[in-house]
Amino acid sequence: MNNLTLSPLKKLEIILEGAYQEFATDLLDHAGVKGYTIINNLSGKGRQGFHEGHLMFNEEDLLIMIVAAVPPELVEPILGGFTPFFSQHSGVVFVSDIQVMRMVKFKGGE
Amino acid sequence: MNNLTLSPLKKLEIILEGAYQEFATDLLDHAGVKGYTIINNLSGKGRQGFHEGHLMFNEEDLLIMIVAAVPPELVEPILGGFTPFFSQHSGVVFVSDIQVMRMVKFKGGE
Amino acid sequence: MNNLTLSPLKKLEIILEGAYQEFATDLLDHAGVKGYTIINNLSGKGRQGFHEGHLMFNEEDLLIMIVAAVPPELVEPILGGFTPFFSQHSGVVFVSDIQVMRMVKFKGGE
Repeated sequence: MNNLTLSPLKKLEIILEGAYQEFATDLLDHAGVKGYTIINNLSGKGRQGFHEGHLMFNEEDLLIMIVAAVPPELVEPILGGFTPFFSQHSGVVFVSDIQVMRMVKFKGGE
Repeated sequence: MNNLTLSPLKKLEIILEGAYQEFATDLLDHAGVKGYTIINNLSGKGRQGFHEGHLMFNEEDLLIMIVAAVPPELVEPILGGFTPFFSQHSGVVFVSDIQVMRMVKFKGGE
Repeated sequence: MNNLTLSPLKKLEIILEGAYQEFATDLLDHAGVKGYTIINNLSGKGRQGFHEGHLMFNEEDLLIMIVAAVPPELVEPILGGFTPFFSQHSGVVFVSDIQVMRMVKFKGGE
């Protein structure tokens, strides 16, 4: 397995309205993220609390989830970049630990 | 980043037949889960073992994955709530550690 | 909760062109993976680096994500099995830690 690499990275799962896909992918591009995958046509619901019934997402919204694997040092700048957006728009970002198998040909000049 | 919060939570990924979506989201609602996202139109296959060929999912089933971020103390009650269901129906629940960026406006009265 | 089991497993998320779905699921089957779920119709973009603009995925490609929970000892053989494929084709594999709730009836003869 001489060309198999497993790198510890952070997985970002960014859930937001599909209308803002380009804003989000531009932000990732400019942060130096090298790739992402988008899951389309999600539905969702969120609210402030069970009794309040304030919706975070409308059931009719077209949501997307953008999945990206990034070096740990990019997490904070990316989240910081999303902060103004999420103060105005619905959505959530999940951050988790992953290892990524990626072939050398895709590794670029790291 | 004065209004950026990163909270350690558990991610639940509940995969089951789409026909039971309302059962599952009602269970989450009653457990106090404040939001979830649903990935529709999954396909899948499962079996008891390679040779037996007992299918957990039929290839024709319409599966969904419900993704929810919950406080750690909700994991056991939620899984317990699903136990009777999964003793009768196909499906699986993945539990993993995540951190969630969510704006203060969505945090409710925690 | 006498029949609730939570097993520590590894989650594989294999993102590749949909045209190679059968290759990938056959590889998982032969490695002894007992089930998987497929998220269809993803879009994605990847490149070697921000400036180079070498695409890992074309925006037009039909991508899929195959999600499987496997025992830790299967991770290396499976990744090794994918190595020759990913030296020729685009894609990525994410590996992460999960716990799985699965009913006894689905556990097979482990």
